[in-house]
Amino acid sequence: MKRNLVLIFGLICFAVLISLSEDASAQQRKHTTYYEQRASLFDELPTSKKDIIFLGNSITDGGEWSELFQNRHCKNRGISGDVCDGVLDRLETITNGQPAKVFLMIGINDLGRGGHPDTVAMKTRLIIKRIKEESPRTEIYIQSILPTNDHYGMFGGHTARWKDIPVANELLRQVAEEEDVTYIDLFSLFADEEGKMNINYSNDGLHLTGKGYLIWRDAVKRYL
Amino acid sequence: MKRNLVLIFGLICFAVLISLSEDASAQQRKHTTYYEQRASLFDELPTSKKDIIFLGNSITDGGEWSELFQNRHCKNRGISGDVCDGVLDRLETITNGQPAKVFLMIGINDLGRGGHPDTVAMKTRLIIKRIKEESPRTEIYIQSILPTNDHYGMFGGHTARWKDIPVANELLRQVAEEEDVTYIDLFSLFADEEGKMNINYSNDGLHLTGKGYLIWRDAVKRYL
Repeated sequence: MKRNLVLIFGLICFAVLISLSEDASAQQRKHTTYYEQRASLFDELPTSKKDIIFLGNSITDGGEWSELFQNRHCKNRGISGDVCDGVLDRLETITNGQPAKVFLMIGINDLGRGGHPDTVAMKTRLIIKRIKEESPRTEIYIQSILPTNDHYGMFGGHTARWKDIPVANELLRQVAEEEDVTYIDLFSLFADEEGKMNINYSNDGLHLTGKGYLIWRDAVKRYL
Repeated sequence: MKRNLVLIFGLICFAVLISLSEDASAQQRKHTTYYEQRASLFDELPTSKKDIIFLGNSITDGGEWSELFQNRHCKNRGISGDVCDGVLDRLETITNGQPAKVFLMIGINDLGRGGHPDTVAMKTRLIIKRIKEESPRTEIYIQSILPTNDHYGMFGGHTARWKDIPVANELLRQVAEEEDVTYIDLFSLFADEEGKMNINYSNDGLHLTGKGYLIWRDAVKRYL
């Protein structure tokens, strides 16, 4: 009997240890190594109230914003592969600087991983609420998710969701309206007649080439 | 006999067509889609004689140089995955602007793909000669290749070559001396006692975290 109790106690301890160690490693693996590289760099960079932050995933990451706008206050806070939760996890490093403006584009990787448009809209609302709370003077701009295109046979997860992108964007537009922040429709500028990414602006159906960034810049310029 | 000749002629035509189409597709696939995205963006961005160009691969790409140096003339011309040949292929978009300075760090992806240190040094010399020819007033800085570390079990191709990195760097130092340009030893600042990347500055054994970029910035600052 006593021996059984010791055995059971031992098993419980073992189970607890296993679950703790799994927890720790899940914690460690929550983000990609690239995310941690970028986020740890952003932690080190000085921020100011004049900052105009471009916040998002690879599509934002790929831009050279201060050069595109010839404005040194424009800062790149894109992380390739990022999702809504990733933005939420690093939002404090943005709001700490109490930036003048934030231009957000996020959600295509959430969709690409099978996420629902409702979830993208709900989490974007969370991002907006957090920015308002932590940095009340920051002007928030919600940029639509760009179209994708399976033309190049790449990024199958993302391009398969092409019909959900306008659905997500309509929800984002509503969230922006309800939260009284600006919604910027970039989707229409990049979509072909079918509603897929215009292949003149992308060489993989997901990301932008130089000409695409100029379209984006020209669409956003008036808000700067 | 006539029929045989027709057959042989047909086969020759077929072979020529196949080789032409292979050539065309090799041409198309010479660079990654990401390379083409970045290079086409660089084509669109204005450049000036005051530019200070950070030219290289992912390690350069990951930096926010104008923010790190708080100098709007510092520009990111890094492309993740780039090799010496990739730099040569897009060098004109750099030299066209007749920039004040170029800080080059290239070669680890060449080594990671099995390239020889001699080849990296030879191609770096080509890069230097091309810059001198196309933009004679540009000051050239050859930054050493950073150490790698297999500690994280990532980038096996790159980390396996850790012993070749000091060999390549010694050759780069000699090339810089012979070409009368500045060599900057960053390797020593990032290497542990064994000569591998200090794991305090990298979370994957190849790329830098924020603290790593500050070391790099502080080492290069005096040359700006």
